[in-house]
This record gives sequence, structure tokens and C-alpha cells, in this order.
Amino acid sequence: SDAPVALPRPPGAWPLLSKGGGGSGGVLAGAPFAEAVFGVSGCRVTWRVPEGAALPPGRALVAEVEGPAAGVLGGERVALNILGRCSGVASMAARAVGVARAQGWAGVVAGTRKTTPGFRLAEKYALGVGGADPHRGGLGGLLLLKDNHRALAAAAGGLEQMIWGVRRAGGFTRRLGVECSSAAEALAAAGAGADIVLLDNLAPQELHAAAAQVKAAHPGVTVEASGGIVLGTLPQFLGPHIDVVSMGCLTHSAPALDFALRVLEP
Amino acid sequence: SDAPVALPRPPGAWPLLSKGGGGSGGVLAGAPFAEAVFGVSGCRVTWRVPEGAALPPGRALVAEVEGPAAGVLGGERVALNILGRCSGVASMAARAVGVARAQGWAGVVAGTRKTTPGFRLAEKYALGVGGADPHRGGLGGLLLLKDNHRALAAAAGGLEQMIWGVRRAGGFTRRLGVECSSAAEALAAAGAGADIVLLDNLAPQELHAAAAQVKAAHPGVTVEASGGIVLGTLPQFLGPHIDVVSMGCLTHSAPALDFALRVLEP
Amino acid sequence: SDAPVALPRPPGAWPLLSKGGGGSGGVLAGAPFAEAVFGVSGCRVTWRVPEGAALPPGRALVAEVEGPAAGVLGGERVALNILGRCSGVASMAARAVGVARAQGWAGVVAGTRKTTPGFRLAEKYALGVGGADPHRGGLGGLLLLKDNHRALAAAAGGLEQMIWGVRRAGGFTRRLGVECSSAAEALAAAGAGADIVLLDNLAPQELHAAAAQVKAAHPGVTVEASGGIVLGTLPQFLGPHIDVVSMGCLTHSAPALDFALRVLEP
Amino acid sequence: SDAPVALPRPPGAWPLLSKGGGGSGGVLAGAPFAEAVFGVSGCRVTWRVPEGAALPPGRALVAEVEGPAAGVLGGERVALNILGRCSGVASMAARAVGVARAQGWAGVVAGTRKTTPGFRLAEKYALGVGGADPHRGGLGGLLLLKDNHRALAAAAGGLEQMIWGVRRAGGFTRRLGVECSSAAEALAAAGAGADIVLLDNLAPQELHAAAAQVKAAHPGVTVEASGGIVLGTLPQFLGPHIDVVSMGCLTHSAPALDFALRVLEP
Amino acid sequence: SDAPVALPRPPGAWPLLSKGGGGSGGVLAGAPFAEAVFGVSGCRVTWRVPEGAALPPGRALVAEVEGPAAGVLGGERVALNILGRCSGVASMAARAVGVARAQGWAGVVAGTRKTTPGFRLAEKYALGVGGADPHRGGLGGLLLLKDNHRALAAAAGGLEQMIWGVRRAGGFTRRLGVECSSAAEALAAAGAGADIVLLDNLAPQELHAAAAQVKAAHPGVTVEASGGIVLGTLPQFLGPHIDVVSMGCLTHSAPALDFALRVLEP
Amino acid sequence: SDAPVALPRPPGAWPLLSKGGGGSGGVLAGAPFAEAVFGVSGCRVTWRVPEGAALPPGRALVAEVEGPAAGVLGGERVALNILGRCSGVASMAARAVGVARAQGWAGVVAGTRKTTPGFRLAEKYALGVGGADPHRGGLGGLLLLKDNHRALAAAAGGLEQMIWGVRRAGGFTRRLGVECSSAAEALAAAGAGADIVLLDNLAPQELHAAAAQVKAAHPGVTVEASGGIVLGTLPQFLGPHIDVVSMGCLTHSAPALDFALRVLEP
Repeated sequence: SDAPVALPRPPGAWPLLSKGGGGSGGVLAGAPFAEAVFGVSGCRVTWRVPEGAALPPGRALVAEVEGPAAGVLGGERVALNILGRCSGVASMAARAVGVARAQGWAGVVAGTRKTTPGFRLAEKYALGVGGADPHRGGLGGLLLLKDNHRALAAAAGGLEQMIWGVRRAGGFTRRLGVECSSAAEALAAAGAGADIVLLDNLAPQELHAAAAQVKAAHPGVTVEASGGIVLGTLPQFLGPHIDVVSMGCLTHSAPALDFALRVLEP
Repeated sequence: SDAPVALPRPPGAWPLLSKGGGGSGGVLAGAPFAEAVFGVSGCRVTWRVPEGAALPPGRALVAEVEGPAAGVLGGERVALNILGRCSGVASMAARAVGVARAQGWAGVVAGTRKTTPGFRLAEKYALGVGGADPHRGGLGGLLLLKDNHRALAAAAGGLEQMIWGVRRAGGFTRRLGVECSSAAEALAAAGAGADIVLLDNLAPQELHAAAAQVKAAHPGVTVEASGGIVLGTLPQFLGPHIDVVSMGCLTHSAPALDFALRVLEP
Repeated sequence: SDAPVALPRPPGAWPLLSKGGGGSGGVLAGAPFAEAVFGVSGCRVTWRVPEGAALPPGRALVAEVEGPAAGVLGGERVALNILGRCSGVASMAARAVGVARAQGWAGVVAGTRKTTPGFRLAEKYALGVGGADPHRGGLGGLLLLKDNHRALAAAAGGLEQMIWGVRRAGGFTRRLGVECSSAAEALAAAGAGADIVLLDNLAPQELHAAAAQVKAAHPGVTVEASGGIVLGTLPQFLGPHIDVVSMGCLTHSAPALDFALRVLEP
Repeated sequence: SDAPVALPRPPGAWPLLSKGGGGSGGVLAGAPFAEAVFGVSGCRVTWRVPEGAALPPGRALVAEVEGPAAGVLGGERVALNILGRCSGVASMAARAVGVARAQGWAGVVAGTRKTTPGFRLAEKYALGVGGADPHRGGLGGLLLLKDNHRALAAAAGGLEQMIWGVRRAGGFTRRLGVECSSAAEALAAAGAGADIVLLDNLAPQELHAAAAQVKAAHPGVTVEASGGIVLGTLPQFLGPHIDVVSMGCLTHSAPALDFALRVLEP
Repeated sequence: SDAPVALPRPPGAWPLLSKGGGGSGGVLAGAPFAEAVFGVSGCRVTWRVPEGAALPPGRALVAEVEGPAAGVLGGERVALNILGRCSGVASMAARAVGVARAQGWAGVVAGTRKTTPGFRLAEKYALGVGGADPHRGGLGGLLLLKDNHRALAAAAGGLEQMIWGVRRAGGFTRRLGVECSSAAEALAAAGAGADIVLLDNLAPQELHAAAAQVKAAHPGVTVEASGGIVLGTLPQFLGPHIDVVSMGCLTHSAPALDFALRVLEP
Repeated sequence: SDAPVALPRPPGAWPLLSKGGGGSGGVLAGAPFAEAVFGVSGCRVTWRVPEGAALPPGRALVAEVEGPAAGVLGGERVALNILGRCSGVASMAARAVGVARAQGWAGVVAGTRKTTPGFRLAEKYALGVGGADPHRGGLGGLLLLKDNHRALAAAAGGLEQMIWGVRRAGGFTRRLGVECSSAAEALAAAGAGADIVLLDNLAPQELHAAAAQVKAAHPGVTVEASGGIVLGTLPQFLGPHIDVVSMGCLTHSAPALDFALRVLEP
């Protein structure tokens, strides 16, 4: 015959498998995004494990996908890429929270804005699935004065004047954070009205001392620590005066988990 | 000749005039947006009065526009519509702030989400030009539990459980407000951890009593009043325990100011 | 439990209420747009009063909305903002038409291009619901030579040459209007082939005299009056030689009506 | 060396040539669109013949393109495709107008809505360059009741009622045309208030008789003829009572002209 | 009554007719695109002849369209324009393939990139329906060094170096073609690693000699001929050493077929 | 003063620093994308090291950014995120190529389609900067029959029939690859006309045997190996009959490099 090939309807649902996360398992994340992708391509997904579930180190059935072959194959790669990335981020977030809880620290483990351009929403969401805090979703949320803003503060009339102007433009509905690199700066920022003091790139000992000083003088201020903190160094940054630890690696360097879709041969 | 008409270059800059705001003047707002529109159509604008300036009741020169005739005429209507709307919002906001300050009240006059679909950004900005607070810019800012959310709280396990869930999903960087319709609800919300208590549609006397109770029990909580407040009734809603008054009319019912562009005849 | 809050399905349809239009009632408009918004968020709307119906000064049931709580709450604010704005425009349009009919004048009350950027379609539509004429929907409809175009006409070879060029570029399917500021200009424009003569910013007496002259010389030409006409001054601009009165205030300064959505508590 | 190839800057301007239009020459059209394409890719075009110029049957220099090699090559194909299509449409339009003028007929030769989806704007423009009328640019211009609308008119309360409703919704700024298939229908449409009567698919003799009847009864109505008219049959459709002849073939079946871009070898 | 006209539901399915292709029939193409358009406007299409079917010279039923009148009329013009254009391209492609097969030549008849901006996808698809090869769909497919690239090759270090760089940037997954204007160039290109040698604008005799030389030296290379080839001259370009003949006229100069939609009068 | 804070112009260019890649250095990639981001925000970038340069383990100056403070701060995070991700991918690609060359293997190291949704273009580009092959850029390039397509081949009339149909639809300009899981399948695919045979998930020993068989029978076919290959296991998959090794980890699990922008304090 001369007709081009048309893809037949597969005999049943296609299994979607987790392939084990490099032998250490992980946390499933990204299911609503993957389901939306398959929805666009005309398929229906039935999840066999819920979002946020622990995935075993070996192969495991995660979901079943039903629909026309062209739809399943058309959505496959994008959906699997989403699951792989989101689950990778959620898994590393869960490991970081696990490290913190194992130390007896009950504060917030948060991400940062070091996300993939265009994919931030999914990565922020995956942090939450893994038990971490997404930190601000965009510039429309938290007002954050970072080091480079503060370096311009002298010309702008000083930090207090700058905070006043930012508050006025941003409005009463938003929190305001100030990035600081010393106890002195942190005390000044808290005194000038910051809701959150972000202690960036301080050595652990210096960090804990600065946090204690801020909390003693301004008990209502939230103290956040950040700056190159990774899983291995996390325990050094946990302490009684730290409310939040933010880790860029949770989104920018989390290895993906591996997922696959299998057709059931007729 | 058989050639279609080509618009000649006008001899100089075209004056952009304010036409007086219905005889009562107003506040100029929207200049950066109008300038961006003319930029897209290849024109340059020189402002003769700054953004936020008071406009007199009569005709006044606001700016001059230079560029090719097709660009000036192409940008004219959109730019004038923007200036008219934004200045209308800023003018009513300034009047509301004026009423408040004349009463000796130093709190925040704010807008609401009752904005024109698609034009919210410009209207929120115009509130700020007029001296009011934009309130949240979008759902990504303040977390706000309104009456309809709260009506569902029982099924969600109660208000405290709902606040806990919202905080977890929203993260530590955002404020959380709860809309309340009685002193009892307001006390419960503040007790459950709300940062902002929004007293909606209370009669003035009831409002001030409820606000006093909330402030006595939770001095750190922000108290906001709203619900059909207009310029004439605003004074009744100002009081020592009210931090913020929100007025939907500032954006949804502000009459526009009138602007015009005139060509200089050769 | 540790799970974030999921919104339960509400027990039945949510009533959508009109709140009375500032005590004077009004005209319902915008229903198809509001219904489309709720459709996008997965809800179904049953209207209890038809588009264009008179709304009473007090509270009245307008529609019922059914669907998942997240969909109802997600569509609520945009849908209410649309209804509020469109009903505001339709109500003022209906009042203007009422003033004209009460005077015994049977001509056309029309809007202008003084609309909100991005929301023009809905505002033009609302004019029609209120019984007014939308005027041109965009630059693709009526060819209109305004004052600034005409100021350039000398350089373009005179008004007759400009009209000829515009007709040639615009084609035989479109009407052509010319904005004029005196009887002499209006007669010249009609003589040069304008279908519509727009008398802009003339004092009433001068307007009616100019209109009579144009009609005497060119009975087939449509005569339109405009320029800062508001409800209070409208009667002065109605007359036997005026076919159309255009009023920018119908769209740029119509206060919104107030609508609300209520959840039925379980 | 191991570095990938970078395109060098060409030594001068690249000539853009017309290749002769299949031996019969034609009319240059599309220059502003082609120039915009090259503008986007960072190049400057100097035209050596103006838009609307006659192109000779052989090879001729049309323009020169200057810019970085990647920009010239990136814009080349799209720009040439635009010139080829637009010049093809303009050339056939000019031939049709030439046929009409050679017959001594001074009416309007127009296109139709039989254009390429997504490319209508350029094709309508090219009709004008060739001396034809673009007919309505979109549904926002002329209100046209076609045969399929009219077949529904009985159920809508008759033609007169339908025209009344369309006028009310469309407003006073737009013309209204009615497609008719007999003299009787045309007289009814003109009597019911149509501005334009479109006689579709009538044999020439029947057409001219119907047109004469319409003009006798309604001298102000525009009479348009259409329906499969091509260059060869055009003369039969020209007549003293016909104002407009519309030809779909001008856009849907005009063969393209051929253009090429040549690099000047160093 | 004062209500605007609402279109009634037509009594049944509307017939969609082919009108005969200028008396010579043709090939139906574009059905999936037309069906998608009607789907967007809420209609269902039942095809009475399959995509690719031969259409007779006279009028023939092609499909039936069911749905609300507004949807049928809203989709009508775009759907018919698509069918007309696509069927025009498919019909000319089928004629070209017919000419080739009648000569006993079994190679590939292909289109080129001379397509309508914005409508390329549909035209490439229509080529396939007519039995021709779409050639590359976009710049992301085949890597093609055309004459203007090659003119820059000297400055880029010679053709071999340029091919090496392009291969490296383009990757191992893509074919690489080189446009040549002589046997010598073709042999050099094949020797430098081209997968496809495109002999452009050679006279037939020269073409066949060059093709024979290339095939003798590089039997694995694909030889393609192009350059102003039309239906009438096609036979001269067919030969034993030619694998592919590419014809720009198949897309840039194929006259459209005519289709119409008829309402069934009640 | 009451005016909100305006950001002053910084005194000079802002240094953009590489922070060392976790102590092991890496390869700079993404400069054109980062520069485009800063261009959009009105800044100019001067690169101090070229794209593809080796970055040292410690801190190093990469570029200088000049422009208004709002533009530098507005582009900062997106530009740094792009550099971090792209340099991470390029660095891992360079390490993989280094491993291969150290083994004396001269074949192609390639990426896969396991990229971040929305960021594929940048990641594919970064592979090239690191010396790897981007593999197909999208579905419009290489025609690839994967395991799930092949599982449907029986119903489609067998592999040979499927390849025939895909070739016909895809055209002569594209390569065609077939994913195989055994030597038998690979021989069948090569025999049926595949240009590329992709041996997926074979153990090294089995892989090399299968590759040898394919090459012996079909020397012109490209043999590609893939399936969970990481840096540590790469050497086992290199061999004399393997042309390409594809590694998903190069894009889906490359840790980002760290970059920062510093303001020069006045």
C-alpha cells in the first residue's frame, strides 16, 4: 500500500516508571505539571503513588497513561523531563530538611532565586513538595535589598532612607528583607525596620554570634542564613537564633531522577 | 497627481495639554506609560511638569511630543487614554489622603483589587502617585483569606488549620491577612497568627470597638478597614486603632481627567 | 496532619449579587465576558436576570455560579470587575439615551475612543447594551480625519486632496468622517466628499446653526456633535439637524456598579 | 584550527534583483514589509526602484542590502517570499485595472476575502499598490450579509428586520452590504436600507439588467459585481451601472514574481 | 421588537462543496486544518471524500458541517481559504509527479522554501498530500550551504573548512547539502563531505553531465536539480543520475481551487 | 524629603565574577544569552574571557557590565542563572569529551532530549561549547523511531513498512534513526534502511559485539550507544565500532557553576 503509517491505538494503559534515582531513591514531584502536559496531548493519567511519595531505589510503577498513541508519544518527553527535574529538586530538598531535623533544628529550609530561567515556577513548587520553603516566587513578593542595592544606599541617602522609600513604593502588604554581611550591618538593618535580616556568606561562628545579637535587640525580626551552603556543610549553619537557611543548590545543582514510559506490546 | 497622501513632518514639537479635570484640577499620573507608548511609535516626549504634579483647573501645558506625524498620531489616543485614567485615579487617591490628613489621621489609605481587567498595573501605580498604597499587586504578594475562603474553613479543619496550610504553601516571605466581619472573628484570626486583620463592612462604631479589642490583645497586628467606603464617608472610618483604610472607589469609580494633543499649524 | 489545606467543594451554587449601584440601580452588562471567565476556571453560570436588565437600587440576585471552590474563587475577582465596569458604562449610556428620548430626540447617542487601554472591546459592547452606539470599534472601521490630521492637510495639498488619498487607501467599503470646528469647515468637508461631519467643541447655538447649514447644502451627510458633553449638558446639544451625539464620559468616567459573590455556608 | 566557522562581513551591499516575472514583467510590491524583515535582522535596504514601479521582463536591480552576513542571509528568504507574493498580487491587480480602463470603465476593481490565512494584510496592501481596492480589511469594517446569512433571515424575522439588527449592533460608522442573487433580491435589499448591493454569480446580461433596475430605484446605492470573474471574463462584467467589480483570483491565484539576492564575491 | 437579531440554528448539516478547480479538477488537501478551524468555532465536520482524493472538474460534495450558525459562519472563510490554497498546491504537486512518472522517472519531486510567510506548514503538508516531498521544513532540519554562503567560503577558509564548521555546529543528526552551479563545484562539494549536491540553474544538458560525474565519483551522494523548473520544462530535467527535482512553483504559483459552503434553506 | 528612592548611576562598570565551580573550575558558556538579557535591560557587557574559556577553581573576573543601576540589577539574576546553568552543562560535556579523548577514542560525545522544558536551546548550545554534539535540536530534525514507536510497528505493518512511511512523511532531507535493544534488532533496522542505529541500554560487552555486527553488514550506518551512561562508566562504552555516545546526564544532572555581580562601592 502507498499510505503513510498511522499509529494504532495501543492495547491499554502505558506504565510510567520511576527508575530509581541513581540507586538512592527520592521524592516524586511534578505530577500536576506532567498531567497537564498529557492533558494537552489528549491523554489521561492515573497515578499509582501520590505526589510527594518516597520512590524506592529500584524500578517502580508511578502512573499509567491512557490515550491515542500520538498523544502519549507527543507528551512523553516533556512530561518525563518535568518529573525528572522536579523530583530531583524535591529529593534534594527532602534530604536537606532531613539533615536539619536530624540535628533537632525546627526552622525553615528554603530555596533561592537561583532557578532555571523559564522553569522557576515548577522548581519553586518542587521545593515545597520536598518540605522546603519556596522563598519569594518573584520580585512581586518579598522586597529584598541585596548587597548591590545596599552599596548604592549611601548615594540614596543612607539605608534608613532607602528602606523608607522601598516600603512606600512596595506598600504595607509586603515583607522587607535586607542582605547583610556583618553583625553591625544586621543590627542597623533591623533597627531601620527590616522584617527579615539575611546574613549572607558569614562563617558559621560569626553567623551564630551575629544572629544572637540581632535576636537580643530585635526579637521580632526573622534571621536568615545563606551563601554557598550545601548538604555537607548545612549542620554548621543550624542554630538557635537562625530562623531560615536558604540553599541555592537545591534548585541549581540537584541531579534529576530518571523516569520512563513503556508501551505494552500487543 | 495619483499618489496617496503622505503625512508631512510637523514643523515642531506638538503640545500635550491638560484640560482641567472638570474644573477642579488634579494630579498628573501615567507619564512613564504614555512615554513608553510614544517611544514605541518613534516619538520623544519632553515633560514640562513632573509626574505627581498638581494640575490647575484650566488648560495647562504638560509635555511636548516630537516625531514623525504618523508616530505622533498613532500613539496619541492610547497615550491620552492612559494619562486620563491614571491621573483620574491619582487625583481621587490624593483627595482621599487629603481628607485623612485633614482629620489628623496618619495611617495608610490603600486601593483594592477592584481594578480594570488588563489595566491593573497602571491603576496600582497611579494610586502610589496620588499618595495611596497600592495594596497587593497580585495574588503572588499578600496571602489573603477572604470571607469566601473562610466559609470553607470549617470543612478544611477550622481557621487555624487553614492558616497553617496557607502559610506552609505561601512561605515565610509573605504576609497573611484574614477578612473578618466581627470583633470575635478578628480576635480569632489574630490569635491564629494573622499578620493583618481586615475588618470588612462593619459600621463605624462597631469597627472602632473591634479594632480596639484586636490592638489590645495583639498589638503587632495590622488592622485594616474596608467595605464601600467613599470620600464622603471616609472620616467616619478613621480612628486611633485603624492602620489602613482600603477604598475600591479609588480605582473602580474615579472619573478620568481630560488631555489633548495639538498640532502646531505651519 | 501535615498536608496543606485543599479547598472542599462548596455545597451548592454560589449566589452572585448586584449590590445596588450606589442607590440608583442600573443596567446589567458584561454577562458573556464574566461567563467566559468562569468557563476558563471550570465553572458554570446560570443567569437569573438577562443581560441588559434593569438592576434595582437594593441587593438583587443576578446569577448562580457552580463549580469547584478553586475555580469559583479563581474567577471571582476578574468576573466581578468586568460586571462592575460594564454595568457602569451601560448604566450611564442608558441614562444618556433616556435624557435624549425624554427631550423627544430620536438620534444616536454614541461613545468615543476614550476607552481603557486593553478593555475597549468590553466597554464598546457595554455601550450597546445600554442602548448607545459603540462608534468605531478600531482604526480599521470608520476613516476619521481629526483636527490634527486636518492641520497637516495644507502640506498634503489641501483637504480635498487628503480626502481623496484617504478614500483611495481605505477603499470603497468604509465611511469617511471629518472633524470640523466651524460651519465653514463643515461645509468644505461635506463638499469634499465626507460621509460624516463631526462638529467638535462648538457652543450649542453655533452647533445648531452649523448643522442646519450642512444639512441644507448636503442632506445626505451625517452630522455628529461632540466635545466634553456630559449628562447635564446633553439637552443643549440635541437638535433637529444633529444625527449623532458622542460622549467620551460614557466610557472614561462611568462609576462602576458593585457586585459580590457569596458562598453558601455548609 | 578547531573553531567553528564565523561568517565574515561581505565586502559591500548585496544586490536584490527582480528576475522578470515569467517574461512579462510586473509591479513591485511589498517593499515596506521586506525592509521591516531586514530591519529585524540588522540590515539596511536602499531601494533602487520605488514601490509600485513597473518591473521589466528581464533581470533588474531592485535594491541593495547592507549588513552583517548572518543578518542578510537570515532575512533573505522571508523578504524574497514577501516580495514575490506581493508583487504577484499587485501585478495581477494592475492587469485587471488595465483591462477595465482599456474598456473605458472608470469604476473600482476590488479584491475579496479569499486571501492566505495569516498573510491577508500584505495581500490587501498589494492590491492597493496595483491600483485595486482592498475591499474590507476584516470583519470589523464593512457589515456584509452574505447568502448564508440571508438564508437565515426568514427565521430572523425577514431581511428588513435582520438589516435593522445588524445596523444596531454595528453602529452608524459602518457601511452595510447585502449579497444578492437576483434583481428582485437586490431591489429588496436596497429598499431595506443596504448601502451596497453585491450581485453575486449573475450572468453578465442578467447582471447589467439588475444593476440598471437598482440604480433607477436607488441611485445612491453602490452596485458591486462578483463571482468567479477572471481577467479573461472581466470585460463582460463592466457596465454603466456597475460601481465595483470584485475578483477573488487577484489574491488566491496570482502567480508569484521571482526575486533573488546575490552576494558580491570578494 | 427592539432586540438585535440572533442567528437561528440551521436545520441540518451545511454542505461544503468543491467547485471544480477551473474545469480541470484537482486533489483535496487541507482537511485537517479546516476541521481544526471549525473545531475552534464549535462545529463538527463529516468528510464525504478523503484527504488526497481526486476532485472532479464539476461541483462535488466534499463534507458536511454541523454546528451553531455563528460558528459555521465564523469558521467558513478561513476554512475555505485553507482548503483552496492547500488543494491548489496539492493539485500542482500531483500534476508534477504525474509528469515525472509518465516519463518513467522514479525519483523525488520536491518543493522549496518559496512558501507564503506564516503559512509554510500547511503548504509543506499539501505538497505531501499531492505526492511530492516537502523538502526541509525549516532551518532546523537539513543544513544547506547556498550560493551566498559559498561565496563567503573563501574568507571562511575554503569550502572544506566551512563544511567542517557547519557539521560541527549542526551535529551528526543532520544531512548537509551544498548548492553548486557547475560540475566542478559539485565534485568539490561531494569530495568535501556533502550528503546532497544541489545543482542549481544548470541547463538540462549540462545538468545531466554534471550529475553523471558526481554519481561516478561519489555514488552515495544525493543529486538534486532546481532553478525555475515548471511543469512544462520538467521533463528536460529528469534523468538517470538525478535523485530529486525541486520546484518552487509548486508553492509560490499554484492557483487555488474553489470551495463553497451552502446553507440548507429551511 | 518625601520622594521615593531613585537608584543612582553606579560609578563605573560592575565586575561579573566566576566563583570557581565548586573548587574544580569549568568552562564558561552562555555569554551570548547573558549579554542579550543585559541588552534588553539597557546594559553593555565587555567580556574579559571568551566563551568556551577554562575557568580557574578560584574567583576570576569574567566580564564587566555597564549601565543604569536599575538595568544592571534587573538583568543580574537571570543573566547569572543562565551563565551558571550553561557553564555547568559545558563543563560536564568537556569532562566527558576529555575522558573519551584520554581513552584514544575520536568519536562523538552527544547530549539527548533530557533537557529542561523551556531552556532546551541554551542547554543544547552549551553542549556544543563544551565540545559535545547537541544531538537533534527538536522533532523537526532527525527522524527517530524509539522503543515505544517500534512496539507499535507490528500493528503498523512491520518495521520496514513503518520506516517507509516515516521516510515518505519526513522527506529526503532528514536522517532516520532507530532505537534498538539487541544486535538482531539493530541488523533488522539497518537492513530496513536506517541511517543511524541507536543501541540503547545494552551492557558494554553486548554493545560492542552488536556494533561490530552492524558495521560488518552495513559499514555506512552510524552506530550510537546510550542508556544511563555517566562519566564514571563512559570508558566501558567507548569502542572501535561506536560512532556516537549519548549521555542524558550532561544536561539533566550537571551541577551549575556559581557567578556573581559586584557593585563597585563609590
